[in-house]
Amino acid sequence: MSKGTLTRERIVGRAMELASVDGLNGLTLGRLADGIGMSKSGLFAHFRSKEELQRNVLEATFAAFRAFVYEPAAAEPRGEPRLRRAFERWLVWQGGRDEMPGGCLILQVSVELDDQPGPLRELLVHAMRDWRATLVAFARGAITAGHLRADANPALIAFQVEAILRGAAHDSRLLDDPLALDHARAAFDAMLNAARSTTP
Amino acid sequence: MSKGTLTRERIVGRAMELASVDGLNGLTLGRLADGIGMSKSGLFAHFRSKEELQRNVLEATFAAFRAFVYEPAAAEPRGEPRLRRAFERWLVWQGGRDEMPGGCLILQVSVELDDQPGPLRELLVHAMRDWRATLVAFARGAITAGHLRADANPALIAFQVEAILRGAAHDSRLLDDPLALDHARAAFDAMLNAARSTTP
Repeated sequence: MSKGTLTRERIVGRAMELASVDGLNGLTLGRLADGIGMSKSGLFAHFRSKEELQRNVLEATFAAFRAFVYEPAAAEPRGEPRLRRAFERWLVWQGGRDEMPGGCLILQVSVELDDQPGPLRELLVHAMRDWRATLVAFARGAITAGHLRADANPALIAFQVEAILRGAAHDSRLLDDPLALDHARAAFDAMLNAARSTTP
Repeated sequence: MSKGTLTRERIVGRAMELASVDGLNGLTLGRLADGIGMSKSGLFAHFRSKEELQRNVLEATFAAFRAFVYEPAAAEPRGEPRLRRAFERWLVWQGGRDEMPGGCLILQVSVELDDQPGPLRELLVHAMRDWRATLVAFARGAITAGHLRADANPALIAFQVEAILRGAAHDSRLLDDPLALDHARAAFDAMLNAARSTTP
């Protein structure tokens, strides 16, 4: 990789950290330049605008999500194991990691951008719909595999998985509830049990 | 009511509208003054700081939530009817109303403030824990009334209700999914059915 690419990656990485705390709109090139020991004009040499930087931050976040959540799930056998792994990895992901000290940037920006029409929102909506379609496919796979009832609703299951994730993020990040993850796992199990095939 | 009180209410009402779109941090006294046809110094005569205004906006939002969601629910008979009414009213509330064109301000600020320690976050956390305790009490009432199983977990049910609400808000506001409310209601019914007493 060229030095320019490495520098861009370092800038985007630091911007992801800041954005997970202050939001995507709260990113300022000045503060980012300070945090990275670079001049503001040096930063502008890599990203011509705040929006270009924000777009790169979103894309890097989706790529990290894909590697951390989607890929391990897709490596599981089709059916309940794949759906369950997706849920589990997502639950770990939303808890926040080194590169996202403020918790999941995707959950954060999905509230931040919902009233802001424009290319960033479009990028986010596209990625969120993609991920939802993947979850629906995972749920459908669990029906085909006979793990869930034939008349279970894959779109409803995917909705419930995301709802539980958002509930868990809220309870752990805002309410500081030590039971947040236990509740999320119990809700997931109850949801699957309700959709489970009675004739295994 | 004095003229001063009416003016304050009008300012807070307009600030609620703006904050539901731009967030509580996105509120600026300048833009608010413009929107209300008042000078910035006129505004300062009513609110000495942005933070005082933000606190008033949060408190007015909680009061509106209480009147719109809690009170109709509390007026229902104890048990499933009360829990269901709370869910239904909350679902309507989060969809946004005239005074919150950007959707539920509470959901918005709970993501916005989660990384911002201070009195606003404390006010929000206090109100959210209060509401959660109310939901837990509603769920416990449904167990006592025999509508839900004796071994159902009231804290888990309250978690699930809030998770479904957050999921519905996401699907309707960001994904523009016309099925968002249907999914939310189906998830609520499935959740209650799973917790229902088998000996009615």
